[in-house]
Amino acid sequence: MSTVTESFVPVSKDSDFPIQNIPFGVFSTAENPNPRVGTAIGDKVLDLAAIASAGLLDHVQGLGNASELFAETTLNKFMSLGRPVWRATRLAIQDLLSKDNGKLRDDADLLKKALIPASSVKMHLPAQIGDYTDFYCSREHATNVGIMFRGKDNALQPNWLHIPVGYHGRASSVVVSGTDIRRPAGQRLPAKDAKAPVFGPSVRLDIELEVGWFVGKGNNLGEPIDIKDARNHIFGLVLVNDWSARDIQAWEYVPLGPFLGKSFGTTISPWIVTLDALEPFLVDGPDQSSPQPLPYLQEDKRSAYDVELEVKIKPAESSKFETVTVSNLKHMYWSITQQLAHHTINGCNLRAGDMGATGTISGPEKGSYGSLLEITWSGQDKITFENGVERVFLQDGDEVKITGKANAGDYSIGFGDCSGKVLPSLYK
Amino acid sequence: MSTVTESFVPVSKDSDFPIQNIPFGVFSTAENPNPRVGTAIGDKVLDLAAIASAGLLDHVQGLGNASELFAETTLNKFMSLGRPVWRATRLAIQDLLSKDNGKLRDDADLLKKALIPASSVKMHLPAQIGDYTDFYCSREHATNVGIMFRGKDNALQPNWLHIPVGYHGRASSVVVSGTDIRRPAGQRLPAKDAKAPVFGPSVRLDIELEVGWFVGKGNNLGEPIDIKDARNHIFGLVLVNDWSARDIQAWEYVPLGPFLGKSFGTTISPWIVTLDALEPFLVDGPDQSSPQPLPYLQEDKRSAYDVELEVKIKPAESSKFETVTVSNLKHMYWSITQQLAHHTINGCNLRAGDMGATGTISGPEKGSYGSLLEITWSGQDKITFENGVERVFLQDGDEVKITGKANAGDYSIGFGDCSGKVLPSLYK
Repeated sequence: MSTVTESFVPVSKDSDFPIQNIPFGVFSTAENPNPRVGTAIGDKVLDLAAIASAGLLDHVQGLGNASELFAETTLNKFMSLGRPVWRATRLAIQDLLSKDNGKLRDDADLLKKALIPASSVKMHLPAQIGDYTDFYCSREHATNVGIMFRGKDNALQPNWLHIPVGYHGRASSVVVSGTDIRRPAGQRLPAKDAKAPVFGPSVRLDIELEVGWFVGKGNNLGEPIDIKDARNHIFGLVLVNDWSARDIQAWEYVPLGPFLGKSFGTTISPWIVTLDALEPFLVDGPDQSSPQPLPYLQEDKRSAYDVELEVKIKPAESSKFETVTVSNLKHMYWSITQQLAHHTINGCNLRAGDMGATGTISGPEKGSYGSLLEITWSGQDKITFENGVERVFLQDGDEVKITGKANAGDYSIGFGDCSGKVLPSLYK
Repeated sequence: MSTVTESFVPVSKDSDFPIQNIPFGVFSTAENPNPRVGTAIGDKVLDLAAIASAGLLDHVQGLGNASELFAETTLNKFMSLGRPVWRATRLAIQDLLSKDNGKLRDDADLLKKALIPASSVKMHLPAQIGDYTDFYCSREHATNVGIMFRGKDNALQPNWLHIPVGYHGRASSVVVSGTDIRRPAGQRLPAKDAKAPVFGPSVRLDIELEVGWFVGKGNNLGEPIDIKDARNHIFGLVLVNDWSARDIQAWEYVPLGPFLGKSFGTTISPWIVTLDALEPFLVDGPDQSSPQPLPYLQEDKRSAYDVELEVKIKPAESSKFETVTVSNLKHMYWSITQQLAHHTINGCNLRAGDMGATGTISGPEKGSYGSLLEITWSGQDKITFENGVERVFLQDGDEVKITGKANAGDYSIGFGDCSGKVLPSLYK
C-alpha cells in the first residue's frame, strides 16, 4: 500500500478526493472536447492523457503506451490490463501528486495544462458498458419488498438465502450523473384488482440506492471465475440510482422479471473508486451460517465495505436538497465478490467494462431504506420536507442526489455525486 | 423492389441464398484473417469490402466510403445508416450479381479475389451486440409452459395478452453458429419439494427455437419509436437457439426472471436476412381483437412473416441429424414491430446492433413445439431417434441445428445454419 498522505494540490478535509482515493473517470473540457481519462484530486481533475504524453507514466510496468491508453474515450482498455497494472498506475499517480515529489509539482507548464478545475470539466460515462447486471442482495430490502407484496410469513423467497439473486439490466440507458431522466410512460393497472391496464406516464416513479461494480479483467465463455480470485476482476465501484417505475414494473414483471419499469434510465457517479482505495474499509460481512452458502460462494467473512450512502432529494418546489435516507454498503448480505462468482459459475463471460450493481441497499431501520417504496411503505407514509412539501413518489422537476463516503477519520474516500432530475413525460 | 431473378453465380433450387436474398454477414478467410462484411450467393460468399475497394459500390447513395464501411469487423456502422441505404445497397449488389450485368461477371481478377467458396470462410458475429432482449411472444409456448407450471386454468398470466412480455438477456454470451456450448453448472433443487439446492451440472439442458431481430437505426433515450415506423428500425432477422438450463432457471427465476439458466450461451445464425428480402412473405398475424392492444401497439394485421423453422438434433450416439420439430415464425402472437415499439415506449434507447429475439416459437401441435420442455412435456415423453437412442433433454455431445426457410415456390430465402454442440461440464 502507498504511504503517501499529502498532495501538493490542496485538498479540503471533507473532499471526496484526497490523495488516498485516486479514482478513474473520463472527462472533457471546452478547450479540448475529446473525452479522455483523468483522476480527481481535491477540487481538481488531473488529465492523465496529458501527464502520460509528458512521459510521467512511462515507468509504470505493464501499462504499455500510456499516452494512447489514457487518450481513449473509455476506460475499457485500461480495465482489461488487470489489477497489478491498475495498482501500479494508481501508486504512480499518488507519487506524482505527493507534496514531496517535484516532478509534476514544479512543472508549471504541464500543471497549467493537466490540472483542471473540476467545475470546468464535463464528465462522461467511464466505460463502454457491454452488459449491466442488477442484483438484489440486501436482505432488508428483499424482506421489506416481500412483506409489502406477500406478507410477513413469506417475505423472502425460498432461493434468496442460497443465491445472490440477479437479473440482466439494460446497458444502453446507463447514464452519467447530471443527465436528466424523462418520466417513462407505459402500461399499468389503474387499480389493484383492475382487469385491464391503462396507458400513460408512470405515477409511481422511484429511486433505488445501489452501488455498482465494474468488471476489470474478464473471463472466457465457459470458464467461471473462482471466488478467491473475484476481487482481482473488479476494477472499482460507483454509486448507482436505478430509477424504477413501480406501477409499470408491477404489471409487467411476472414471470420474466423487471423490464420497462427499469430500462428508461440508470444513473451512475462519474468516478470509479478502485478496490485498492477501499481496502482500508473492508469489514466483516453479515453472518451467513444459516444456511451456509454452497462452496462456490464461500469466502472470508471480511468481504464487506464500510461505505456510508446518503440519498438527498430537492423537490421541484424547493431550493435545497434534504436527506431522505442514510444507509451503508456494509448492510448488504451477499458481497460483490459473491455476486461476481455466482454470475460466472454457469460459464457466463464477463468483459472489461461490464457493470454489476448490488440492488437497493436498505439498512435495518426506516431511516436507512434505499427506495421511496420502502420509505413511504408503498405510498402510505408521506415524506414531508422542511418547507412543508410532501412526497410519496417523485414528481416532475424533483432532483435526486446520492453520495457515498468511506470515512477514515483523518480523510474520507468519496465518489462524487450521482444525481439526476425528473423531466415530465412526453405523454398525458 | 428488385426484379433481378437470376445470377451468374450458380444457385441450386434449394439454396438458402438465391439472388432474391442478399443477406449481410461478417467473415474471414485463411488468406485474409481480417473479419469483413460479405453477402452469400448460392454456395459462395461475396466479399463486399473487395468489391467496394474496386469501386463497384461507389454509386450507392448514402453509403459513404463503402470500402472502409465493409472492411469494418462488424455491421454496426452500416446498420446505423438507415433503411434507404440498406435497400439501395442490397439492390446494387443484386444488380452486380445479375447474369445480365457484365461489370462483376466479366472481371475475372476481381471475381477470383471476391467470390469465395462458402466452405472456406469462417463466419463471425455479424454485429457488436450492445444489448440483447428476449421476448416471450408465442401464445402457444406461453400457454404450454403455463399449463405445466400453473395448470390449465391459469396458463396465461393476466398481462400476457396486453404486453409483449420481454426481459433483458445477456449480450456477451451470444455466439455465432458452430460455437460449442459448455453445459452450465449451477444451483438446482434435487427434487420438486426439496428445501435446499445442490450444486452441479444442469441435468435439464434445453433448446429454444427463436428468431432474432437486429436493430438498424436506433433512437435517443427518452424518445420512443412509433409502431408505424418500427419496421424501418429493424435491419433484419437471424435464427436463434437460446439454450436454457431448465433446472437452474426454475430455482432462480422468482421474482426477477431468468438469469444463469440462460446466460451461458445463445447461438445465432451468421447471416442477417433483411426485412426487404422477407417482404414477399408478409402474412396476416393472429387475431388480436380480444383484447385489442393499447393504441401504441396497434398496427396493420399484415405484420407476420411466413418462415418455416426446423430443429434437428444429432444425438452423440448417432451420425445424422433428425428433425424434432417444424414450426413457423407466423405463429407468433406479438409481431417483431410490436416488440420493438413496446421496448421503446418507456423511452429506452435502442442502438444499431442491439438484438431482440421472439422467445420460443411453438406452433399449435406437438410436432411444432419449439423446446424440449414442451416436446417431452417436462420430461414425461421421450423422443426416440431412428437408431433407438432416446432423449428428454440434451446429453453431452449432442448437436442441435436450427434452419429457416421462406418459400416462394421458385426460390426460397434461408438463413444458413444455427448450430452448436454440447460440451461436458467442467464440474461433477
